[in-house]
Amino acid sequence: MSTLVLPETAREVRELIRSDQWRGVTSGVAPGYVQANLAILPRDLAFDFLLFCQRNPKPCPLLEVIEPGLTEPQLTAPGADIRTDIPAYRIYELGQLVEEVDSLIPYWRDDLVSFLLGCSFSFESAMVEAGIPMRHQDKGCNVSMYITNIPTTPAGVFSGPMVVSMRPIKREQIVRAVQVTSRFPATHGAPIHIGDPEAIGIADLDLPDFGDRVEVLPGEEPIFWACGVTPQAVALSCKPSLMFGHGPGKMFITDHRDVDYAVI
Amino acid sequence: MSTLVLPETAREVRELIRSDQWRGVTSGVAPGYVQANLAILPRDLAFDFLLFCQRNPKPCPLLEVIEPGLTEPQLTAPGADIRTDIPAYRIYELGQLVEEVDSLIPYWRDDLVSFLLGCSFSFESAMVEAGIPMRHQDKGCNVSMYITNIPTTPAGVFSGPMVVSMRPIKREQIVRAVQVTSRFPATHGAPIHIGDPEAIGIADLDLPDFGDRVEVLPGEEPIFWACGVTPQAVALSCKPSLMFGHGPGKMFITDHRDVDYAVI
Repeated sequence: MSTLVLPETAREVRELIRSDQWRGVTSGVAPGYVQANLAILPRDLAFDFLLFCQRNPKPCPLLEVIEPGLTEPQLTAPGADIRTDIPAYRIYELGQLVEEVDSLIPYWRDDLVSFLLGCSFSFESAMVEAGIPMRHQDKGCNVSMYITNIPTTPAGVFSGPMVVSMRPIKREQIVRAVQVTSRFPATHGAPIHIGDPEAIGIADLDLPDFGDRVEVLPGEEPIFWACGVTPQAVALSCKPSLMFGHGPGKMFITDHRDVDYAVI
Repeated sequence: MSTLVLPETAREVRELIRSDQWRGVTSGVAPGYVQANLAILPRDLAFDFLLFCQRNPKPCPLLEVIEPGLTEPQLTAPGADIRTDIPAYRIYELGQLVEEVDSLIPYWRDDLVSFLLGCSFSFESAMVEAGIPMRHQDKGCNVSMYITNIPTTPAGVFSGPMVVSMRPIKREQIVRAVQVTSRFPATHGAPIHIGDPEAIGIADLDLPDFGDRVEVLPGEEPIFWACGVTPQAVALSCKPSLMFGHGPGKMFITDHRDVDYAVI
């Protein structure tokens, strides 16, 4: 399977995943298509979680919510099946990871509500196109992520600190980075914070809470964006009886294009 | 009370309303503060309605959702009371208007969820500041509103056509009107349609479904924006056992400023 040349459209990639012909990470796959984080929760938590996302749109930019028991993302990927079209799923019980699986079909229940949330791949592509390099991409590693002292706005049972991702940006490109990412509010949007990590409760940039260490060079500032790990971390912290998520780096690829989400 | 000079801050105006010293329409009151449409529904409809708003952000731009039974808009107007701080409320049973009242306190229940939705006053101010006149304001009448053939995206029990408001704009100012309103997605944002009313199912501009007739002069085009009447019309069409709304033209005045909602 290592010689498999991946197709260019989201639909074709999803078909390969569904038919078990490909199970890789989705970064760089089907370029130009919006990818999504997944969180699936029982119906009794769905109103609170939807409200949490509504109150915290920067870390939790909702692309689509699939109604209880339904499995087709009719708005962002008609014909897809949320239970089979992601390369890997994680199953959490009472907030603990219990299993990673290829398909959610054996675990599906009629009371489950699926949330698809924008991920940062879209705005990273826009920054690269604008000539702003992404060091973690160039190094082939994951972005650095940190738990901050910035509280999210609670909703029902859900509350907790915001998780941010950090990208080192040359000082002369910071304004452009703000402009470029401001165009994409559905995929985290403008930065949450520029510079001084301690101001948002990050004691040591070299010790990310998630992802990999990414160096900040002289002439650069660390720039922080709200991160899609936030809703997952917040959801797990309230120890739901059951929650499904995507495997790390393995996102749901929608039929929507990055450009569809540019506000201007 | 006709000589009452209204105070300039939202908080002070709300206090006058709460203490029954003023009960007028809120257009032009507390300039610069964001005003909101109100819809209050029982909890069993709240998830579907929240999802309907999430799926239809242009007609249903959520500013705040107050959790079941709670009455303080903590995010947009801390200290306010959603039951008393609007000049008039309408009570609907099974989709029919049954009463207009000054206070919801006698009618309050612990299962009620309050939705505050952005209204067009914010972007109208921005257009006037940009030199784009609003004819309905100049004539002292209400904006023209029409039921279109544009379907909203259904959610649960809620579905129905989009309602739009129409403003005549000089051809040379249409681009500027698009730009100015695009900055305010939380208050309906960019137009839904420019020109030809028949293309969106409006047979006769002179016969609005709601509001007043507003003339389109030679050299102007009718420009259409998604309207906050949409969620109210959609909610009532499914005949909820109980729904509360605001009296016509009598909005909830938040502490947030118009400029806080400009995306760039």
